[in-house]
Amino acid sequence: MSDEIDPPATGLPEPEESAPTGVSRRGLLGLVGAGAAGLVVGGAAGAGIAVAAKATAAPPSSATYPFYGEHQSGITTPVQEHLHFASYDMMSRTTREDLISLLQDWSYAASRMTQGLDVSATGAVSGPVESPPDDTGEAMGLAAAGLTITFGFGPTLFENAGEDRFGLAAQRPAELQALPAFLGDALDPAQSGGDLCIQACADDPQVAVHAIRNLSRIAFGRAKIRWSQLGFGRTSRTTAAQTTPRNLFGFKDGTANILADDSAALAADVWIASDQPAWMAGGSYLVARKIAMIIESWDRVRLAEQHRIIGRDKGQGAPLSGGDEFTAPDFAATGATGKPLIDERSHVRLAHPDHNNGVRILRRGYNFVDGNNDLGRLAAGLFFLSFQRSPAQFVTLQRALSTDAMNEYIRHVGSGIWIVPPGATAGSYVGAALLA
Amino acid sequence: MSDEIDPPATGLPEPEESAPTGVSRRGLLGLVGAGAAGLVVGGAAGAGIAVAAKATAAPPSSATYPFYGEHQSGITTPVQEHLHFASYDMMSRTTREDLISLLQDWSYAASRMTQGLDVSATGAVSGPVESPPDDTGEAMGLAAAGLTITFGFGPTLFENAGEDRFGLAAQRPAELQALPAFLGDALDPAQSGGDLCIQACADDPQVAVHAIRNLSRIAFGRAKIRWSQLGFGRTSRTTAAQTTPRNLFGFKDGTANILADDSAALAADVWIASDQPAWMAGGSYLVARKIAMIIESWDRVRLAEQHRIIGRDKGQGAPLSGGDEFTAPDFAATGATGKPLIDERSHVRLAHPDHNNGVRILRRGYNFVDGNNDLGRLAAGLFFLSFQRSPAQFVTLQRALSTDAMNEYIRHVGSGIWIVPPGATAGSYVGAALLA
Repeated sequence: MSDEIDPPATGLPEPEESAPTGVSRRGLLGLVGAGAAGLVVGGAAGAGIAVAAKATAAPPSSATYPFYGEHQSGITTPVQEHLHFASYDMMSRTTREDLISLLQDWSYAASRMTQGLDVSATGAVSGPVESPPDDTGEAMGLAAAGLTITFGFGPTLFENAGEDRFGLAAQRPAELQALPAFLGDALDPAQSGGDLCIQACADDPQVAVHAIRNLSRIAFGRAKIRWSQLGFGRTSRTTAAQTTPRNLFGFKDGTANILADDSAALAADVWIASDQPAWMAGGSYLVARKIAMIIESWDRVRLAEQHRIIGRDKGQGAPLSGGDEFTAPDFAATGATGKPLIDERSHVRLAHPDHNNGVRILRRGYNFVDGNNDLGRLAAGLFFLSFQRSPAQFVTLQRALSTDAMNEYIRHVGSGIWIVPPGATAGSYVGAALLA
Repeated sequence: MSDEIDPPATGLPEPEESAPTGVSRRGLLGLVGAGAAGLVVGGAAGAGIAVAAKATAAPPSSATYPFYGEHQSGITTPVQEHLHFASYDMMSRTTREDLISLLQDWSYAASRMTQGLDVSATGAVSGPVESPPDDTGEAMGLAAAGLTITFGFGPTLFENAGEDRFGLAAQRPAELQALPAFLGDALDPAQSGGDLCIQACADDPQVAVHAIRNLSRIAFGRAKIRWSQLGFGRTSRTTAAQTTPRNLFGFKDGTANILADDSAALAADVWIASDQPAWMAGGSYLVARKIAMIIESWDRVRLAEQHRIIGRDKGQGAPLSGGDEFTAPDFAATGATGKPLIDERSHVRLAHPDHNNGVRILRRGYNFVDGNNDLGRLAAGLFFLSFQRSPAQFVTLQRALSTDAMNEYIRHVGSGIWIVPPGATAGSYVGAALLA
C-alpha cells in the first residue's frame, strides 16, 4: 500500500510571496472562487463585518459568526457548547516567512470554516481525484454550528530562551510573560505553554474538531500541536439570554461574568486599549488553566459545606446572604451566630471585584472528562479560559484565591497565556499588523 | 479542611434485603416518592412501556426513552449525539449479594435519570444539608436529552481465571468468551474487557457524563471503573429519518445499518432468541472496539485511493458501481479496464452481507478525540459499538476485514464483549432473571 500514498504534504498549494495585501494565493483564490465551490454557505463569507455578533439568545446550530472584524470572534460571542483548544509550537528551523505564511493560511481557512465552508474552494471532494483532498471532509453536510476560531501568540513566539527566532523580541509586550507560580500549582509542562494557540468553539463538537484537525494539517512542516483539550458544557455565559450552566461541582458557573453588551466593562477589563501598539489594541490576553477536580472527594462533602465553600446555594445559585441568583452578595450580612453568611474563605467572596480592587475578567471555560485514572476515578475538571486586557487581572484574582476553601478539591495541572491580536480586516490575516 | 469531609460513603442508604420484588429500598422509595420530588419529569417515569421507542425523526434534546421494557433502551433507540461508555470490575471480596444490590441500585438510578430526574427522590439539593447530596448536581436544569443507559455483563463476571465469584459459572453462555485475536490487533489491556459495562448515550454530553459519574459513585465499594470512553458525532443511524453521519475519515458511516423498524433483521441478527435461557432472551451481545485512526496518513491519501479503499465515493456515499448513497452496490460491475468498479479489498465489499453468508450487525459507534500524542498528532478514531445476537457475527465480519485496504490506516487498541440482558420489568432490575 505504501506506493499508493503521496509523500508527506498538506495537499495545499504554498502561498505566493507576491500577494500584495498579505493574502496568500489560496486566500485570493478562495475569495474569488467561493461562489463556485458548490457548497452550502452558512452566512456572508468573507464579509468585512466590523463588530462581533451580539446574539441575544442561545444560537441555533446554524449560527454563523464573522471571522473578520474589529475583534476576533470567540471572546464576546455567545458561548458555544463545545470546545477544541490546541497549543502549537513552531518547528525548529522555521523562519519569519514561515510564520507569516502559516498565519495567512490559518486565517484564510478560518475565514471559510467559520462560514460553514471547507478549508479551501477545492475542499473535500471537488478537487482532482489524483491529489489528497484539501479538506478532511468530516464536516461535510454540517452547518457552521456557531464556529469561532480565535488565534493567540505566546511569550515564546516573541522570545524563546533568549532566542529571537522570528524577529519579534523588540515588539514583545512587557506583560506577556509565563504566568508566575501560584500556591498549589501542579503544572505539567506537556499541558502548558506554547508558541501559538487556537480556540475553536462550536455548537457541534465535530465542527470544532474538524477545525483544529484541518488547521493542524495546514501547519504541517511549520508548527505542530504541543497539547490540546476538548471540552463540553460551557461554564459561563456572555449574553443575559444564555442560561447559567453548571460546572462538574454541580454549581452554576458564570453568573457574574462580563456580558457582550456591557461595553463599559469590555473597554475597562477585556480589550487592550488604543494607547497600546496598534497591532495589539482591540486584542486581549487569553489565560488557559486546566483545573483537575477531585470530584470523588467533593461528592462526599456535606451539602452545607459545599454551600459554605462556594458562598452560593447549589440549587438556585443565590448568594448565601439571600435573594436569587442575580442578587448581589452582601458580604457584611451575618447570621444568628454573628458570623458572616458568606464565609470569608468562600470562592465567591475571594473572587469578587469588591475584594480585588474592582478587577473583573471575561470567563469562557468548559467542563472536561479525559477518561479515568488508574484508580478508576474520572479524570474530570474545568478547562478555565479567561480574557482580560492585562495578565495582571488574572494574577490578582488567582492570588486572592490562594486561601480558597475550594483548593482542597482542585489542582491546576496545565497553564498557558497568549496575546490575542485584534481581528483581521477582510482578506488579511491575524497578526498582519505585527508581522507585515 | 479534612475535618469537614464525611468519611468515604456514597451518601446513599444501603438496599434492604427484605425488599420482596427484587427492588431495593431506595427503589421502593423512589417509585412511591417520585411525584413528590418537585423535579421536572421529562417523561412517564417508571411506566412499564413494553417496547423500545421508535422515533421517526432525530430526537430533540428533550426526548425521553423508557428504561423498563422488553429490551434495554440504547440499542434500537435513535442514535444520540454523545456517548460516555464505562467498563467496570467488581472489587475484590465482593459477593453475589453485592452484585445484586449494585444492579438494583444502578437500575433504579437509571430508571430515574433516563426520565430527566436526579438519581433519587432526595436528589442533588433537597436532602438534609448535613449529608452529602445523593446526586452530584451537574445535570440540574437539563432535560433528559434522550438519555439511555444500557448495562452489559462480561465473561469475567461469570468466571474469572477459573474462579466463580458470584455463583454464575454454570449459567455462562458458551459464546460469552473474550474475542479471539485478530490480525493486526494492538490491544491495550487497560482499554479492554471488564466485568460489567454501561453505555450512556444522550444528546447532551453533560447528561451522559452525569449518568456515568453518578452510577460510578453508586458503585462505591462494589465496583470501580476499569476504563471509559467519551464519544461524539454518532457514526451510525437506527432510523431512516436520521441523516447518515461521517466518521473521521470523512466518509459517511452507517448507510446500511440495521434500522429500528426492520423487525425481521432485528429478530434474525440482533435479539437473542427465545430458545435461549429466559434471562438472556431478548437481550443482545455488545462488542466494543476502540479503533485508533492514523488520520495524518489517511489525509495524505489521494481522493481516488480513498474511494478505492472504502468502495464508496466520499461526497455522496454512493457505491463506486454507481447510483446514490442507498443504491445497492453491484460487485460484479466492471470498468473500462475490466476490473471491478468496487475493489475486491474495499471495506464495503469485505463487510457486505453478500460476502459473509448474510451476516449483519447493528452498529452504534462514535467518533473520539483523546487529545494528542507526543508527536503532536491527534489521538483520534472510532469507538466501534455493535449489537448482535451472537458474537460469531462480529467475529465473521472482523475476520473478513483482515485483508481490508483500510487496515493500513487503523489500529484496534481496545476490545470488549458483554452480554446485554433484556430490559427489566418496571420496578425490577437488569439481570434479575439471572440473579434472583
